[in-house]
Amino acid sequence: MTAPAPSRYPVPTLEELPDDIRARILAVQEKAGFIPNVFVTLAHRPAEFRAFFAYHDAVMEKEGGLSKAEREMIVVATSGANDCLYCIVAHGAILRIYAKSAVISDQVAANYRKADITPRQKAMLAFALKVALESHEIVEDDFAALAAHGFSEEDAWDIGAIAAFFALSNRMANLIGMRPNDEFQLLGRAPRGGKPSTN
Amino acid sequence: MTAPAPSRYPVPTLEELPDDIRARILAVQEKAGFIPNVFVTLAHRPAEFRAFFAYHDAVMEKEGGLSKAEREMIVVATSGANDCLYCIVAHGAILRIYAKSAVISDQVAANYRKADITPRQKAMLAFALKVALESHEIVEDDFAALAAHGFSEEDAWDIGAIAAFFALSNRMANLIGMRPNDEFQLLGRAPRGGKPSTN
Amino acid sequence: MTAPAPSRYPVPTLEELPDDIRARILAVQEKAGFIPNVFVTLAHRPAEFRAFFAYHDAVMEKEGGLSKAEREMIVVATSGANDCLYCIVAHGAILRIYAKSAVISDQVAANYRKADITPRQKAMLAFALKVALESHEIVEDDFAALAAHGFSEEDAWDIGAIAAFFALSNRMANLIGMRPNDEFQLLGRAPRGGKPSTN
Amino acid sequence: MTAPAPSRYPVPTLEELPDDIRARILAVQEKAGFIPNVFVTLAHRPAEFRAFFAYHDAVMEKEGGLSKAEREMIVVATSGANDCLYCIVAHGAILRIYAKSAVISDQVAANYRKADITPRQKAMLAFALKVALESHEIVEDDFAALAAHGFSEEDAWDIGAIAAFFALSNRMANLIGMRPNDEFQLLGRAPRGGKPSTN
Amino acid sequence: MTAPAPSRYPVPTLEELPDDIRARILAVQEKAGFIPNVFVTLAHRPAEFRAFFAYHDAVMEKEGGLSKAEREMIVVATSGANDCLYCIVAHGAILRIYAKSAVISDQVAANYRKADITPRQKAMLAFALKVALESHEIVEDDFAALAAHGFSEEDAWDIGAIAAFFALSNRMANLIGMRPNDEFQLLGRAPRGGKPSTN
Amino acid sequence: MTAPAPSRYPVPTLEELPDDIRARILAVQEKAGFIPNVFVTLAHRPAEFRAFFAYHDAVMEKEGGLSKAEREMIVVATSGANDCLYCIVAHGAILRIYAKSAVISDQVAANYRKADITPRQKAMLAFALKVALESHEIVEDDFAALAAHGFSEEDAWDIGAIAAFFALSNRMANLIGMRPNDEFQLLGRAPRGGKPSTN
Repeated sequence: MTAPAPSRYPVPTLEELPDDIRARILAVQEKAGFIPNVFVTLAHRPAEFRAFFAYHDAVMEKEGGLSKAEREMIVVATSGANDCLYCIVAHGAILRIYAKSAVISDQVAANYRKADITPRQKAMLAFALKVALESHEIVEDDFAALAAHGFSEEDAWDIGAIAAFFALSNRMANLIGMRPNDEFQLLGRAPRGGKPSTN
Repeated sequence: MTAPAPSRYPVPTLEELPDDIRARILAVQEKAGFIPNVFVTLAHRPAEFRAFFAYHDAVMEKEGGLSKAEREMIVVATSGANDCLYCIVAHGAILRIYAKSAVISDQVAANYRKADITPRQKAMLAFALKVALESHEIVEDDFAALAAHGFSEEDAWDIGAIAAFFALSNRMANLIGMRPNDEFQLLGRAPRGGKPSTN
Repeated sequence: MTAPAPSRYPVPTLEELPDDIRARILAVQEKAGFIPNVFVTLAHRPAEFRAFFAYHDAVMEKEGGLSKAEREMIVVATSGANDCLYCIVAHGAILRIYAKSAVISDQVAANYRKADITPRQKAMLAFALKVALESHEIVEDDFAALAAHGFSEEDAWDIGAIAAFFALSNRMANLIGMRPNDEFQLLGRAPRGGKPSTN
Repeated sequence: MTAPAPSRYPVPTLEELPDDIRARILAVQEKAGFIPNVFVTLAHRPAEFRAFFAYHDAVMEKEGGLSKAEREMIVVATSGANDCLYCIVAHGAILRIYAKSAVISDQVAANYRKADITPRQKAMLAFALKVALESHEIVEDDFAALAAHGFSEEDAWDIGAIAAFFALSNRMANLIGMRPNDEFQLLGRAPRGGKPSTN
Repeated sequence: MTAPAPSRYPVPTLEELPDDIRARILAVQEKAGFIPNVFVTLAHRPAEFRAFFAYHDAVMEKEGGLSKAEREMIVVATSGANDCLYCIVAHGAILRIYAKSAVISDQVAANYRKADITPRQKAMLAFALKVALESHEIVEDDFAALAAHGFSEEDAWDIGAIAAFFALSNRMANLIGMRPNDEFQLLGRAPRGGKPSTN
Repeated sequence: MTAPAPSRYPVPTLEELPDDIRARILAVQEKAGFIPNVFVTLAHRPAEFRAFFAYHDAVMEKEGGLSKAEREMIVVATSGANDCLYCIVAHGAILRIYAKSAVISDQVAANYRKADITPRQKAMLAFALKVALESHEIVEDDFAALAAHGFSEEDAWDIGAIAAFFALSNRMANLIGMRPNDEFQLLGRAPRGGKPSTN
C-alpha cells in the first residue's frame, strides 16, 4: 500500500499558496512541529480556507464560560457522532493536551455518558449533541437544562455554535477523505512523568 | 400573541453594529427592500457574522458548473431535511426567483424525487443530501454517480461544500429560533404577468 | 419540460366518472374555482375514492373540540413529517385561509416547535406526530399530556384519527406521485388588504 | 388482573348501534363465530366505521392480480413493521387460513425475507414495506422491480393501497389500544388432519 | 416448495456429533418431544455450541428475582425488536407455557406496552429493550427506574445479560436463517381444558 | 475526582475467585503485564465469565480464513458502531499490535470506509456491520458479496459470529460501565523503532 494521500482532492504546495494562507500554515507548523492536514487540504480552495479558519477562531478562541478543554470536548463528541475520522483524531489529541488526560478523548468520542467528566460537562455535551443531530428539536427546556448547571445564555450559543461549525467541518472532512496526520496518535498520551495520566 | 421576535437572542440595532457589518446590511436592504433576519440575528456575534457571510459568499457566489438556481436547490433540499424553517422559507424565495418557478421550492423542500427538475439535478441533490445526512458513507461510487451526469470533481466539492455550510447554517438558525421575515412569503410566487408561473 | 401530469396513473375525464363522483368534483370546483388534483387522481379507483372522501369528511368535518384550523395544522404537520408534497401544499393553502395567517403553514410543515401557535396547539401536534411516526409507543401519559391542555378523550381520538387518515393519504399521494395544483401556491398568502398578514 | 377491555374507548353494545352497522357486525359474527374487536371498537364512531370498512372492502376484496393470501401477507408484513398487535394477530389468523399454512404468519410478521414464500411475493412485500415506512422514497425503479415479477401497474396500486390503508388501520388500533380477540390464536394453526400443516 | 432447511449451513446428524453434544440434544428431545432447531443448527460448530448453551443456562436458569416467565418475556420482547423469527416463535412457545397464557407471547413480541403484564414487568422490558437497542445510552436513571419497581442491582444485571445474550442469539439465527420447528406453533395455545386460556 | 471504578458492579478480588477463573486471569496478567478489566469485572458472575470466554476463544482463536488482525478489525468496527468504549479501546490496542499499525484502530472505529485496509477487508466489515446493526436484513446477496472477495461459507459464519458475540460483549460492557485500563492507550502506538508506524 502506498502512502495514503491526505485528501482525494489536489493538495497545493506551500509555494502555490497565497501569502496569507502560507503564513498561517507556517505559523502552525512552527508551533505544532508539523502541518495538520486540515490546513493543506482545505487550502485547495483559498476563499473557503479563509472563511473556515475565521469561523474556527471565532468559536474556538473567544473568551467565555467554556474552558479550552470543554470546547474541544464538544468537538470530539460531535465528531464522534458524525463518524469524522480527521476531527476525532486531531481534536482528540488537542483535548488530551488541554485536559491533561491521556484517556479522555477516547471516552468522549465513544460515549460521553461514561466519560470521566463532570455532570456539568455531560449536560454541555448533551446539548451539543442535540444541536449536532436533531437541532430542530431544540426547545426552551434544553436551555433551562444548561442554565441549571450554571451556563449562561451566551455559553449556550457558544456550545451550539461549536457543534454547528463542526457539523460543517465533519462534512467537509468526510467529503474529501481528509486523513489525520500520524503525528496526532501519540500527542498527549504520555505526559512528562513517563506514564499515561489517569484522569 | 405579540409580534414574534426574529431570534431568542438579543438583536442589535444598526447603530450598535461595527461599520463593516452595518454597511453590508444596508447594502442588502437596498437591494432586497428589507433586511433578512439572518443578518440582524447573527450580528449579535460580529466575528461569527463575518466568517459566516465570507463562507456563504465563497460557496454560493463562486464561478463553476452549478447555476445559481442549482446552488439554491441544494440549500432548500438540505434545509428541508434538517427541518430549518428560516432557510426553507428564505432560500425558497430566492430559488423561486432564480428558477423562475412559483412551485419549485415547495417541491424541493418536501421531496426532490418528485420535483420538476432534471435527472442531473436529482443526482446533484441525492449527493447533497448524503453529505447533509450521512457524510461518513460517501464513497467513490457517489462521485462516479455525479460524473455520470457531467459533474466535475470541482462541482462535487461545490455541492458538498454548500450542503456542509448549510449544515452549519441550519443548526444556528434552529439554535437561536431564527424567524423568517414575512416578506419572503410572496417573493417569486406571482411574476409580473399576474399569475403564478408553472414550471 | 412538458406540463407534468397530476399522477403517474391514468386520470379519468369528468365524463368517464360515475355520477356521484362527478357531482362531488363539480361541487368542489364551483367552490374552489379549480379542481384539486386529489379528486381527479383518486377517481381512477371509484370505490376507493368514495371511501377516501367519506373518511376525510368523517374526521375533518365533524363537530368537536378542534377548530378547523387546528385540524388542518395536524394535516400539515404530519404531512411534513411524511414528506408528502401534495398534502403540504394543498392543506397548507387551506390552513393559511382558516388560520388567517400567510406564514403559519410553512412554519408547521417545517417545525411546529417554532411555529406561532399556542402551547395547547403544540401539545396537539406532538400527539399527532407520535401517532404518525411511532404509534406503537402511545401510552396513557400521552393522553394525560393532552388532558393537561384541556383536550377531552374524544378530542384525542380526533387528533389521532386525523393523523391516521393522513398516514393513508400521504402514502397514496407519494405512491402515485400526486402533484399539487399550481393554484394552491398563492391561496391565503395575500389577504384582501394587499399585504401578507403576520400572525 | 381483570379481563382486559378491547379498547381504551367506550365500546357500544349492539343495541346502541345504527342498523347498518349492527347488520354488518351480525353478518361477521355469523360467518366467523365471534365478533372481531375491530368492529365493536371502531363502532364508537359510526361515520368513521362506515368509511373504514368501505375502504377495507375496496382494497381487500377487489378483483386483481393479487390472491387473497397475498393481500393478507401485505397486511401482516406492514402491521409487523408498525408493531400493531391487533392486525398482526387478526390478519395473521386470516393469512394462515387463506395460505393453508400454520406457520406463514409468524414468518411474515417477523421477517418476510426468511418466509416460505416465492421471490415474487418477496418483491411484493418489499414494495409494500417501502410504502409503509418511507413512501416518499418510492421511485420508478420500484415499479420496475414489481414489473420484473409480472405485477401490472394496477397490481402496484393494489399493493400500495393496502399498505396505505393499514398505515391508517395500524395507527387507529395503536391509538385506542385495540385488543385482538383470543379466538384468533388458534385459527388456522391446526387443520383438520390434526397436526399443524407445514408449508 | 420443498421442505425448508433448518439452516443455510450444513446440519450434522446426531451420529456425527461429539458425545456431550449428542447427549444434550437427546435429553432435550426426551423432554420436549422434538429437537428444537437451535440445537442441530448450532451444532455445526461444536465449540460455539458448548459456549452458547453454557451462556444460555447461566442467564436463563440461574436463581434470582426474575421468574422463568419474566426471563422469557425479555427474550420474546428483544427478539421481536430484532426481528428474529426463530426466537420469537420458539421462546414465544416457552413463554406461553410458563405464563400459562395463550396470548401473551404475541403481545410481548409486537408491543409490550399493550401487553397484559404488570407495570413492574413493563419497566423490566423497557430496560431490556434499551440494552438491546441502545445500550450506550444506559445511565444511572435507568437503574433507578428498575429499583423503583423493586428490582435489585443483581436483577438489573440479569435483565441486561438476557438482553445481551439474545442480541447474540438473534444475530446468529438471522445469520444462518435458523428456521423454527413447526411444533412450536401450537405449544401453549390450547391448555388441557380445551380452550385457549385468556390472561 | 476519585479513581474511577472498572465497573458499576462489585469487582471480586483474585482471592475470592474460583480457581479456574483465577488461573485464567493470572495467565493473562503474565502475558499482558496487567489484567484487562473485562476479566475482573465479568468475574462477578463466574458462570457467565466461563461461558463468555469460552465463546470468545471459540470465535476469536479458531483456525480459518480470517487473520488475527482481521478478526480484531471486526471487533473494533462493530464496537465503534455500538459506542462501546471498553471494546474500542481494548481491542483497538490489540488490533494495532496485530496489524502493526499505530493508526488503523482509530480509522476502523470511526469509519472503515476511509481506513487503510483492502477492498476485501472493507467487504468483510460491511457484512459484519450488517450483522451487528440489521441482521434481519441479511440475504443471500450478502453472502455472494463476500464470496466475490474469496471468503468461504465458513468465513462468512466466522465474520457473523464475531459480530454477534461482540453484540453481546458491547452490551454487557455498556450495561456495567466497564472501564478500559489506562494501559491500553499506548499499546501499539510507538513500536520499538521509536516513532509511530504508518500503515
